[in-house]
Amino acid sequence: MPTPILVLNCGSSSVKYQVIDADSEAVWATGLVEKIGLPEGILTHKVPDGEFVVEAPIPNHDEALRLVVQAFADHGPALADVVAVGHRAVHGGELFRETTIVTQAVIDGMEALAGLAPLHNPPNVTGIRAAQAVLPDVPHVAIFDTAFFATLPAEAYTYAIDKDLAKQHSIRKYGFHGTSHSYVSKKTAEVLGRDLKSLKTIVCHLGNGASISAVDGGVAVETSMGLTPLPGLVMGTRSGDIDPGVFAYLGRVAGLDALAVDKVLNKQSGMAGLTGGLSDFRDISAQIAAGDADAKLAMDVYLHRLVSYIGSYVALLGGTDTLVFTAGVGENDAAVRAGVCDRLAPLGFKLDPAANAVRSKEPRVISAPDSPVTILVVPTNEELAMARETVAAIRR
Amino acid sequence: MPTPILVLNCGSSSVKYQVIDADSEAVWATGLVEKIGLPEGILTHKVPDGEFVVEAPIPNHDEALRLVVQAFADHGPALADVVAVGHRAVHGGELFRETTIVTQAVIDGMEALAGLAPLHNPPNVTGIRAAQAVLPDVPHVAIFDTAFFATLPAEAYTYAIDKDLAKQHSIRKYGFHGTSHSYVSKKTAEVLGRDLKSLKTIVCHLGNGASISAVDGGVAVETSMGLTPLPGLVMGTRSGDIDPGVFAYLGRVAGLDALAVDKVLNKQSGMAGLTGGLSDFRDISAQIAAGDADAKLAMDVYLHRLVSYIGSYVALLGGTDTLVFTAGVGENDAAVRAGVCDRLAPLGFKLDPAANAVRSKEPRVISAPDSPVTILVVPTNEELAMARETVAAIRR
Repeated sequence: MPTPILVLNCGSSSVKYQVIDADSEAVWATGLVEKIGLPEGILTHKVPDGEFVVEAPIPNHDEALRLVVQAFADHGPALADVVAVGHRAVHGGELFRETTIVTQAVIDGMEALAGLAPLHNPPNVTGIRAAQAVLPDVPHVAIFDTAFFATLPAEAYTYAIDKDLAKQHSIRKYGFHGTSHSYVSKKTAEVLGRDLKSLKTIVCHLGNGASISAVDGGVAVETSMGLTPLPGLVMGTRSGDIDPGVFAYLGRVAGLDALAVDKVLNKQSGMAGLTGGLSDFRDISAQIAAGDADAKLAMDVYLHRLVSYIGSYVALLGGTDTLVFTAGVGENDAAVRAGVCDRLAPLGFKLDPAANAVRSKEPRVISAPDSPVTILVVPTNEELAMARETVAAIRR
Repeated sequence: MPTPILVLNCGSSSVKYQVIDADSEAVWATGLVEKIGLPEGILTHKVPDGEFVVEAPIPNHDEALRLVVQAFADHGPALADVVAVGHRAVHGGELFRETTIVTQAVIDGMEALAGLAPLHNPPNVTGIRAAQAVLPDVPHVAIFDTAFFATLPAEAYTYAIDKDLAKQHSIRKYGFHGTSHSYVSKKTAEVLGRDLKSLKTIVCHLGNGASISAVDGGVAVETSMGLTPLPGLVMGTRSGDIDPGVFAYLGRVAGLDALAVDKVLNKQSGMAGLTGGLSDFRDISAQIAAGDADAKLAMDVYLHRLVSYIGSYVALLGGTDTLVFTAGVGENDAAVRAGVCDRLAPLGFKLDPAANAVRSKEPRVISAPDSPVTILVVPTNEELAMARETVAAIRR
């Protein structure tokens, strides 16, 4: 029986949505509202028989959700068939350790966590309220980006800082991209026909944001993002790990305060910072091919960091059965995958170059048959994962 | 023929010194001047036939060095026998890639680097000037804590930030404790009777400050400290690695500016922050034995971080021949060594528990005979290393 779920991802000026059947995985509709709050708002609604665009000022999320409902009414599918709404929620802090049916208490909790994710949690809440107003008769569910990492052991999530200050302000590692890491690690066991409970997996989620996780028997034990989505791997515009001493240093030598340095590290760093503006890996590869030394160094730094983390997680897991690549770069950039695995070859990561070169939307093994570690590409599907999480929550 | 070297380590309010024969390794004298600039200055001078203390106001480094010279005149050995003075210099920046004979240009260079190490480089320079004044007839040599890491490849020393900002302010990884990592990695090859050039080594320098390095054929390829000595391992009072997003966060939720957060991370964090004030591992072990949960967690976080780094360096080196423990904790805390190696056992680190339990001042192998990785304790000797560096520099 179809179980259509409306999946909603509300950002500060956008709403992404999908109606997806959690059983068959069929996508009934996808859509995007952009430039909320600006004069030139735009809604794009895609269904199997066409794409429909509405251009109009969209002053706020209420209006955005009203237009979404109207688009469904005009072009289908019928929202009346939707059994629940799954909302992406970025930061669950220490309050939300799993996907949760939205109540007033949940909304209050998310608002209380706004300090941890000031750019994300407030629009998440705004989106939930607006969606509840237009779809009052179905359950709404919040799926937290941090929830999969609620299982991290204390030795992994505890920062070595003043314990009272940490407690007072809930300073610890939370991790992000959890829905993707959870989906991909489960899918990996499925693809290999292995019992998830006996599988050690390292998942590299390499998109514009990037993170890596160590998953032992389906349970997350380490991840590279932290209190915020800034640390860890090199990303499109984010630095990932850097000496925290750089804040006092740049204050002293350049007069930059913490907010200014934070902005540099979040917006002007990563691959874009190293290359002078490029964050798309196709552009970076083209520059490398053209002999650009900055692009080459950026890629080397990217691979070095990734190899460091994989080695670290191999040690923490006491060895790994699988290494999995996902998200835009992980799924599509064979050169990045080869760069990582070639550096790791002495440790039992043996790529099959032909399998690695194949472009596909399907999950697939790309290691050689005799590779001690099985290496895979497993495309992530956060919408499907959210739909399934939503179904599981309303059935609990 | 004896080659006595005066080794000097000038901090902001202290001077440590030693006269050491670089050939026989015999220590002819050691001493310490404390509380420079305070009313209750104190000098302690130790020679084979006794310990001599001078208590007097010591307003500045010139007076401190004058008192040191006087102590040598009163109690021996004769400073006239000293062939050179080796000065510990903390930050060599990008200017000083090796041990260097001090000239006016070197002093100017060290002063230009004060922005990188405002607490350390100025007293280093003050000490050099004062020592030159009282010992004008011998060469003075500067031994930089960063120099051993001048060989790091660009992919290891480059932070993924805006390249122009990085260039303008020389923001990169430098690494510290280089004299110790260099000495210990060389000594390891010597102890094992192996050719340094073919040896892959991971050195854990675990003192109140702590850092780890990956050394391939005698050449440093990675290390955990960075632009400053803050990042990396958990230390006595320093956090080591932490999400750099904590600066903007603590600004927002607690009104702390970058200097205040930097102070927390340098002075109120690490083992002291996690335990509520303990940074001595003997105290921490006693607390763990007494059932203290905070002390246990602090130790777990410490070991987790260390194991992560070792795994990372195994991956970067493509495997390692040796793992070496040095400095106060590394040389004396068998439980820390066992904690690290037990977690790494699945990767070929097999400790010999009896050998690990032995207390000794000698370098020694502590792994089982069939351990794929040879594990050692190699006591560091920074003064001897500095004396040798000094001799090598004046002979070049």
